[in-house]
This record gives sequence, structure tokens and C-alpha cells, in this order.
Amino acid sequence: MTRLAIALLALASSTAAASVASAQRAAPPLPARVDPRVAALRDAALKDDVAYDIVEGLTTEVGQRLAATDAEARARTWSVARLKALGFKNVHVETYQMPVWLRGAETAEVVAPFPQTLKLVALGNSGATPATGLTAPVVVFRSYGDLANAAPDSVRGKIVYIGNAMRPTQDGSSYGAYGPARFVGPALAARLGAAAVVIKSIGTDHHRNPHTGGTNFPEGVAPIPAAALSVPDAELIERMADRGKPITLKLVLTPRFAGTGTSGNVIAEVPGSDPKAGVVLIGGHLDSWDLGTGAIDDASGVAITAAAAKRILDGPKPRRTIRVVWFGAEEPGGYGGKDYARVHGGERHATAGESDFGADRIWRFEVNLPDTAKPIADRLQAALAPLGIARGAGVGGDGTDVGPTLALGVAAIDLDQDGTRYFDTHHTPDDTLDRIDPEQLRQNVAAWTTMLAVVANAPEDIGPVTPRR
Amino acid sequence: MTRLAIALLALASSTAAASVASAQRAAPPLPARVDPRVAALRDAALKDDVAYDIVEGLTTEVGQRLAATDAEARARTWSVARLKALGFKNVHVETYQMPVWLRGAETAEVVAPFPQTLKLVALGNSGATPATGLTAPVVVFRSYGDLANAAPDSVRGKIVYIGNAMRPTQDGSSYGAYGPARFVGPALAARLGAAAVVIKSIGTDHHRNPHTGGTNFPEGVAPIPAAALSVPDAELIERMADRGKPITLKLVLTPRFAGTGTSGNVIAEVPGSDPKAGVVLIGGHLDSWDLGTGAIDDASGVAITAAAAKRILDGPKPRRTIRVVWFGAEEPGGYGGKDYARVHGGERHATAGESDFGADRIWRFEVNLPDTAKPIADRLQAALAPLGIARGAGVGGDGTDVGPTLALGVAAIDLDQDGTRYFDTHHTPDDTLDRIDPEQLRQNVAAWTTMLAVVANAPEDIGPVTPRR
Repeated sequence: MTRLAIALLALASSTAAASVASAQRAAPPLPARVDPRVAALRDAALKDDVAYDIVEGLTTEVGQRLAATDAEARARTWSVARLKALGFKNVHVETYQMPVWLRGAETAEVVAPFPQTLKLVALGNSGATPATGLTAPVVVFRSYGDLANAAPDSVRGKIVYIGNAMRPTQDGSSYGAYGPARFVGPALAARLGAAAVVIKSIGTDHHRNPHTGGTNFPEGVAPIPAAALSVPDAELIERMADRGKPITLKLVLTPRFAGTGTSGNVIAEVPGSDPKAGVVLIGGHLDSWDLGTGAIDDASGVAITAAAAKRILDGPKPRRTIRVVWFGAEEPGGYGGKDYARVHGGERHATAGESDFGADRIWRFEVNLPDTAKPIADRLQAALAPLGIARGAGVGGDGTDVGPTLALGVAAIDLDQDGTRYFDTHHTPDDTLDRIDPEQLRQNVAAWTTMLAVVANAPEDIGPVTPRR
Repeated sequence: MTRLAIALLALASSTAAASVASAQRAAPPLPARVDPRVAALRDAALKDDVAYDIVEGLTTEVGQRLAATDAEARARTWSVARLKALGFKNVHVETYQMPVWLRGAETAEVVAPFPQTLKLVALGNSGATPATGLTAPVVVFRSYGDLANAAPDSVRGKIVYIGNAMRPTQDGSSYGAYGPARFVGPALAARLGAAAVVIKSIGTDHHRNPHTGGTNFPEGVAPIPAAALSVPDAELIERMADRGKPITLKLVLTPRFAGTGTSGNVIAEVPGSDPKAGVVLIGGHLDSWDLGTGAIDDASGVAITAAAAKRILDGPKPRRTIRVVWFGAEEPGGYGGKDYARVHGGERHATAGESDFGADRIWRFEVNLPDTAKPIADRLQAALAPLGIARGAGVGGDGTDVGPTLALGVAAIDLDQDGTRYFDTHHTPDDTLDRIDPEQLRQNVAAWTTMLAVVANAPEDIGPVTPRR
């Protein structure tokens, strides 16, 4: 070793020492100790098959499960049998009534300037065209913002097209950014006197499978026909518009409201030893849209949460009761979640969380816990870290189904899935079993098992919180 | 350095020297010199926009172009105008008559054991069910081979399901390996007395977009209803079959034969200076299936070959006439290619080649040239190498459209596209403009430009060959 090399080494060494000192000054607290029983449950769950079996079974033996239809009822029967077979306690269904919306015919064609047929699907709660169809000129808005700033004269009597520039995001935030074109765009177009509205699908794929989803016409706004074009079809319309020629569309959309029907929540429990400690509420939604077989939305969510609870069920009785709810009728308006809060809101809940964002790996968790229970989050952080899950900077408390319960002041624990490819498939015919990656599904089960092992047995009191919003 | 290390180095050195000597002994001849004019044309073509404009125009302004329909006629009108605008000579249409097959309604549902709707499309030349549908038990064959070895009693009166295990291949060879389930499976099922046949799509994707394509019922075999399920729907049927329960399907398929109609080839030329040197025939097919807008099958093929010819057109007159043919009615049975050979087979052709395998990059070329013209292949090899294109070990001469001309003994030059993702989209609604990668499309134009620059100006005589098959 030369003198120069020795000198360089010494310099590097002192620099490294300075860096360590700096890092130590800014360092977070040492990680919490991971209970070996939690670690063992977590690691065993990485070999889980229960969740995949549930997704495979629901998609194969039931298929689509549109809310308040016979198919959703068959799904409830299937679910009760499966949850009982898995050994859960207090398995039962709680029903409620709700309006029924059913898809009809749905075809579209460009009449001019370049005759072509288009692929589109009606949005949930869409009004209908005459059975013979509606033909009208198209006014093209590249975004919801453009429509919001439109002169009513430009819209009246026309078919409104609303585009978007949605791109994939890991946290799904682009759904919130571009979704309003679907959520409230049709109602705005109706108020402006439009004859109908077609949106570019709220989706991130390039397939001829349009994305359905609910839209909302408030009291006093009569529903107009409202549908989503597949992304390639929307791009075709925009290319025609780029040529500056007037576009005329013919739409046939015959969905209908079919009165009131029955939906329901399927409930199963892992009984706890301390009834006063509050219930740990978890679940997903059993209903689906009617185009695919509801694999990622949301057979995977009910499967992941039940598979995790099953792992606690098979061990020593936890302190807190774990309640697994497979909610009904999430898609058309969160009816199941509202009914659950109506029936059970008076019971003490320790925490609530749901899985409704597919089956890709969980990458982040966020909580809303009272000060007395903060150490729980530290223990979760340490126990989830080996699964590649980091603690987010935000406040937890997301979800349509547990939302009405969270709104009562229940603490929240969110396990956030990677949404990068979720909106390729969301609400399309492509939501089928093959979208499930079994390895990532198992990581989800491991994360939920870990959460349950930590939270259901936490000695801390988990009292009420201020809801996130 | 130790003595051992020195000894090892010496050994390595002598081994390396021996390897170099061995490689030199086995080395191929030195590459041919690339004519700088050829290289300049090739490199300029990497900035081509003509091909993309043609694909964009055909898919936007015409859309699907089913053979012998008004849509294909509109495509011919569009094509003549575009080819004339590009400056080609002798632009004209040559028509012929052919049988017309038109798609009708197509729905399917599992009646038992698990009611679900399925996505399927009729195959070209399919027979029809009654308008009210056909309900029958299903017999599941996992492959065409299993059907070929079935006892007729197991098939008679049933709906035959034929699966496959097709995977992507760069050279497209898996289409030949698994395609017979579509090409001849329905006819075999018909001979065995089946009521109908549904195949797993001949495709490599996982989307709910089934792959259509022609099937063939020979003289004397009455067409039965024949359709393709999307890959996820086929997997669903197989999962149901795995449960060992009898499956009953209801099919509604109402395609029809609509007599005789007119199709045609669109022809354009770059005139050469030496009429005796023979025509260089290139092209693709203008018709498409009716589900997508025929972007990769085969707007890209007509676009690539015309864009390349346009680059020769804009320079000094070549020795040989280049004839660009946008063939009609390839999909239902190669009618355009047969008609071309009937009309023009008596003319001297130097070479023929077609582009009908999408728009991904060309990775290989193969030729069938007479001995007098072998140096042409060496010059092609040198000129194409910078585009990432290597010379294949096989004999060229592929293609439905130029096939009847090649069969007359015309020399062949194939430029083979990468087919790895081709069968994700082939014959589906997803065959739309967004499938085209503009950079890879330009590489195609550069390869065809290079080929034309070499072949159309080659001083060698290019006489007849023995066809590949």
C-alpha cells in the first residue's frame, strides 16, 4: 500500500465518520421490536393459498355480481358457505333495500364525417336514449375543465364528449384528478342542456374495453344518456375533431332503473377475549360491476382480508374481535357501507380499514390513531418493513365501505396497494382472474395478517379520533 | 505477481491466440460494400412520416375494411387518392368477384353449472345458430390434437370446445403450431357431428377481446356455428371443466353469407428504365377484419411498402419497375393475391415480397434467389445490418398475397418483423392505431427502402427459382 493510498483511506474514513454523525443527528427513533409471534404469522402468510382460492372461486362459480341482482344474491350464498367452511363465527347476512340500475343495449357509431362503429358502455345511473337511438352533433371538450368553462349555447342539444389525460400513478391519485369527468361531468352536461354525454374512459390502458363506473345526477337533474368510450375510440374521436370536420354520433343506450331491490353485507367474526377493547373492522366489497368478473374489484379485497383473519382465527384467541365484512353494493353508491354504519355504528370499534384497490403489492401504510395508541404505528412500521412497506406521511382513513364508520370517529389503518396498473383494468370486462398475481396477493395477505396480529392484540386503548375529513 | 499467476496468464494468452485463429479459419466472407446511395436512402428513411400518415389516415378516415363490403370500397377510393397524391404512376383498381360473409349477433352464456356471460366472436365462414340460439352440452378438448383423437360418440350433438397453449414467438411460428384449432378444427368437429364449436382464441394476450379469423369448411361439409372465446373466457371454461361438472352453453351466432360481392386490388407503380429486367412486386393487404380498424393487419403493411417505394420514386429512375399492390380480400381467403397472379402472372417479375406481420421492427431477412443473383443477398446483408437485421438460415417466400405469384417461380425476398407481440392483437378489436410504434414503423420503411434500392437497381439478371414449396 503506498503512502498516497494510506492518506486517501484515512480521508475517506474521516469523511465517513462525519456522515454517520450527521445521519445520527437526524436519525428517527430506533425501530420498535417485532414480536416473534407477529413475525412468524407474517412470514407464514407469504405462503397463503386461501385468498387465491376465494378469488378463483368467486370469479369462476359466481362471476359478475352487480348490486341488488340475483348474481349478487348468489354471491352472498356462496360467501356464507365459504366463510363457514373456513371456520369463522357468527357468519350471517344483513340485508337492505336500494334502487336497482340495469344495463341495456349499448352501441355507438360515427355517422359523419367517417362512418365507424365505436365501443362504449353506459355509466351506472345513465339515462336512456330512445330504443331506436339518438343522433346528434358532437361538441368536443378535451377535459372536464373545458366543459366547466363552456358557453351553454355550445352544448345545448348536442352530444358532449369529455376527454382526459389520465396517467398511471402508484397511489391512484390520478383517479381523483381525472375522475370528475365521470363523477359529475354528465350532470354538468345535463344542466347545460346536452342531449347525451360520452366520456373518454377514466382508465390508463389502450384496449377496446371501456371503463364503466357510477355517475351521479343530483335531485332535480334528469339523467341523460351517459357512456364511456374505450380509450382508443376516444382517441379516434379526437383525431376526427383535429381535422376540423363536424362529427355526428348515433347512440343506442337503453339502461333502466328497475325499482327497489335487495342487497346485503356478509359478516363473519374471529371472536376476541375482551369485548370492551372494541372491534377491528376489515373487509372489501362483494358486489362488482357487470362487465368483468370482479377479480381485482373486489374479490381480491374480500379474499385478502378474510385470508388474513383466518390466520388469526387458527391461533390463540386475540384480545379484540376481528369482524370481516364483505360489503354489498359498493359500486353504485356505497350502500353496504352506509347500512353497516347505520346498524353497527353504536358498537365500539377500535379500528377500521378496507382493501379495495386490487391485488398488487402493498407499498405504504398510513394511520389515524389517537395519541394513546401511537406506539401501535411504530410496531406496525417495524413489522411491515420486511414486506417492503413503508410508513406514509399522510393521515389514514380511506374507503367507501368503511368511510361511514370512520366518519363516526373510529381510528383508521390503511394498507395501500400499488395502483400503477390498477386503472388499466378497473371497471372493464378485463377485470378477470388472470389479472391477479398470486405472489403479490400473498404479500397482501401477509401485510393484513401482520396488521391484525399487532392491532387486535395491542394492549393500548384505541379510542376515538378526529376523522381525516 | 506469483509464478502461478504468470503461468496462468501465459496459458490464457496461448488459448486466446488459438481461439482467434480458429475463428478466422471459420470466418464468413468479408461483408459486401454498401453503395453510399443505398446507405443514404436507408438512413433518410429512419425519419419517414409517410407510412404513419397512411396508417393514421386509413384507421381514422376509413376504419374497418371487411372484404367485399362498402367499407373496403371506401378504402379503395381513399387509397387511389392517396397514392396519386404521393405521385405514383399508373394508379388504378383491378376488381374481382367473391363470396361475401357478414357478421351477425354473437352472444354466449354458461347456462350450467355457473351462469355467466362470455365474450366470443364468430370465425369467418362460420355457420349460424337459430336466431333464438342453440343450447347444448359442451365437450372440452384441451387441444386440437385431443379433438383429432376423439371418439365420434363423445362429440355428436355437442358444442365442441378446443383449447390451445399458444405462446409468443419472435418468428410467429406458434401461429402455425396452434392455428389449426381455428383453421380446420371447426370442419373436423362438423364431420364428427358437433352442433357447434368454440375455440380458445388463437392469441397470446389476456384481454376480453376474442380473436376472429377465417376457418374453412370444405366442399361437402356444411358449416356449423364456429366462434372464438377470449382467452380469459376460455380459461374460465377450463376451470369449470376442472371441477368435473357438466357444462351447458347457449350460443347465439347469426352470421350469414350474402351472395357475391366486389373486391379489388389497388395498384401503383414507380416506373423503371428497363422493362425487360422484371417487376419488383411489393405490398400488403388493404382489407381487414371487421372488429378493429386494421392498423397492424394490415394498414401498416400497405403503408410501409408504399412509403419505401415513394423514396425511390423521389430519386433517380430505378432500373426495374416497382409495383406496389394493396391487395383486397386477403383475410377471408387471399382473393386479391389469387386475382393478381391470374391477371399479371404472365408478366416478368424479378422478385416479390409482402409486409403482413404488423409494424414492429424487422429482425431478419431471407431470400429465394437464383444463383445468378446471389450477390444481391450479400449486398442486402451488408446494407441491412446497421438496422439490426440479420440474414436468416431459411429460404424466403412467405405470404398469402404474393404466394400465388411466387408459386409461378418468382424470386422472393422476405423482410421478417418481430412477431413477439403481434398475436396479442391480431384479429381483435384492439387492432387500432395505438398499436403502432412510430419508431419501429420507420425502421420497417428503412428496411424496405434499402431492399428496393438494392434490388430494383441490381445489374444481375433475376431469373426464375424453384418455389419454396
